[in-house]
Amino acid sequence: MSALFTPLTMVPETLQDVAHMRAALALAARGVGNTWPNPSVGCVIVKNGAVVGRGWTAPGGRPHAEAEALRRAGEAARGATVYVTLEPCCHWGRTPPCTDALIAAGVARVVVALRDPDPRVDGAGLGRLAAAGVALTVGVLEAEARSVNEGFLKRLARNLPMLTLKLATTLDGRIATRSGESQWITGPAARRAAHVLRGRHDAVLVGSGTVLADDPELSCRIAGYAPVPTVRVVADARLRTPPEARLFRGGGPVWIATRPGHSGASLEALRRVGAELIEVPPAAGPGLDVPALLRALAARGLTRVLSEGGAALAAGLLRAGLVDRLAWFHAPAVMGGDGRPAADALALVLLEAMPRYRRTGLTALGPDLLSEYVSLAAPHEDPA
Amino acid sequence: MSALFTPLTMVPETLQDVAHMRAALALAARGVGNTWPNPSVGCVIVKNGAVVGRGWTAPGGRPHAEAEALRRAGEAARGATVYVTLEPCCHWGRTPPCTDALIAAGVARVVVALRDPDPRVDGAGLGRLAAAGVALTVGVLEAEARSVNEGFLKRLARNLPMLTLKLATTLDGRIATRSGESQWITGPAARRAAHVLRGRHDAVLVGSGTVLADDPELSCRIAGYAPVPTVRVVADARLRTPPEARLFRGGGPVWIATRPGHSGASLEALRRVGAELIEVPPAAGPGLDVPALLRALAARGLTRVLSEGGAALAAGLLRAGLVDRLAWFHAPAVMGGDGRPAADALALVLLEAMPRYRRTGLTALGPDLLSEYVSLAAPHEDPA
Repeated sequence: MSALFTPLTMVPETLQDVAHMRAALALAARGVGNTWPNPSVGCVIVKNGAVVGRGWTAPGGRPHAEAEALRRAGEAARGATVYVTLEPCCHWGRTPPCTDALIAAGVARVVVALRDPDPRVDGAGLGRLAAAGVALTVGVLEAEARSVNEGFLKRLARNLPMLTLKLATTLDGRIATRSGESQWITGPAARRAAHVLRGRHDAVLVGSGTVLADDPELSCRIAGYAPVPTVRVVADARLRTPPEARLFRGGGPVWIATRPGHSGASLEALRRVGAELIEVPPAAGPGLDVPALLRALAARGLTRVLSEGGAALAAGLLRAGLVDRLAWFHAPAVMGGDGRPAADALALVLLEAMPRYRRTGLTALGPDLLSEYVSLAAPHEDPA
Repeated sequence: MSALFTPLTMVPETLQDVAHMRAALALAARGVGNTWPNPSVGCVIVKNGAVVGRGWTAPGGRPHAEAEALRRAGEAARGATVYVTLEPCCHWGRTPPCTDALIAAGVARVVVALRDPDPRVDGAGLGRLAAAGVALTVGVLEAEARSVNEGFLKRLARNLPMLTLKLATTLDGRIATRSGESQWITGPAARRAAHVLRGRHDAVLVGSGTVLADDPELSCRIAGYAPVPTVRVVADARLRTPPEARLFRGGGPVWIATRPGHSGASLEALRRVGAELIEVPPAAGPGLDVPALLRALAARGLTRVLSEGGAALAAGLLRAGLVDRLAWFHAPAVMGGDGRPAADALALVLLEAMPRYRRTGLTALGPDLLSEYVSLAAPHEDPA
């Protein structure tokens, strides 16, 4: 069911379902970047046409959206309809099963956007509700629910996080002058938007060259926007990240992905400043095996990763077909062919082999432009 | 007087003037690209609040806007107010002076956006009208009138045409794969928009490398859009343009700018297929002296030139500070650092030396984006 083309022949009750599910999806979007390894879910409880409870997955992943919405609704939940963006859980995790809470509250009907492919749920939540006599509707705004949970779904399906490649370049795609000067190509509004992007991802990933060149903090510095601190990950095969780097000052986890076999003082120094070391096999060329790196991040629970460069890491991600989304900031300037490129060589010979994207967003940020894209190759672009 | 911030304290008659002048400017914009070496002017004649005549500079530069509007108004012009985007001419050129026609028609008042800096006019047209007892208002939407006539004004002031650099690249600023494959990076809607751009310029300018690589026709292939055929100019120091090139087939002038001293068969072959040869001094490095090339084009009457590359010419224009406007088409794709760059080296060391622009337009063209800019360095950006 598409957001844009709700069929005009729909019965009024279905239009109500779409409207309430859209509200639930907006709540789900609030949690994105702060619920890993859990999905971010939204829930709206409606009785006699009035919203009596709302909830979304809390920072850290619990309480769940349904629990929070039931708490707010109280006795009003009895006989109500519950809109939830993902199938309610039916297993004991760190919280009791949401199905049981819904049944206990006496809700009459549950409308679900998307069945949860987590093998501990995967239809069993729906079955439990049905067995208790709760009326069910499944698939309302399913494509939108897939998009909100793209990272969670990709991790379950492919042991990989959703990856957004963020770049800030001139119109001709340059990130620095030939002498390496790069701060700042884009203006303050674009930099604020980049902080929002960080807050909406579980982690930021950069190459060690970026740490050495720019010494960035890589945190989301917008108050209240990232209640769960964004993980900073450095792809650093040669273990070049200095323990004095600003990364280690702001608080929040820093993970250094490096190849196995390092030992000695530099390893110890990084551990002392709080870095978590992750061993990843090296690539055939320089650097790390990029797919293995992303699998290691997914194994640690990350569902949404924002890569902010540099050019070698960007090219590695693009070559491996691992870039699901692009967030491209273009500054109104031209640097010329001797400026440093946004992405290193992709070794394309044929134009048709070039990674292509579909535009999903366009925002003017003062003098700069942000255009956002999803990959045309990625399977998440074909919601069933 | 700015278009966006018309003061709220304006008296109603002045608001009327602004509204009618805006209509005249829209008429003037219709002629752009088809009136060189003349400016493109718009004229609206208003009597008792009703528009009784409209005109704009005809293809080729005559009849003038005022003559056409007076012809349409007929007897209704008597006692009317005339809105004209540029000071009416007072000299005999290939047409009689517009001032005399306005006086003879008995108009009561003339509102002018911009005084004509052409030394044959330059206030004398206004003086003649005033002497005949016609009421005058000058400066209504002057900045907008400057913008419409940017090419005409720059040629008068600096013996240079306005230059728009058009580029069609990937998000990372590449125009072809490393093997040179480039057709088509952008889609059909972007290519149509590029044809419109050609029609709105007097001439298209490319380097000979582009002719050899792509064999483009470089014409505006939108029916009725370019009644005056767009001049095609090739910057071709080494006289490499083949006489068989498609350029020579579509009709319309082809100018080959080359350095002095060529002789022999290739020169003759180009002349035989209709090329006009223009001698321009060579640059210190390879290619032609780019400022001298543009001065030669202005000397032949061109006011608006669209450069469509390649990368060497684009860099030459940018380095010389000759790019007044950018029209940048971005396709939703990434090619990587081994793709061919949009502009060759600019040899920038400091970021602050980088050519910067202000965005004036943003258009989604199917999957592609067109963003348009004016130079922040150009003097036309400071309308008096």
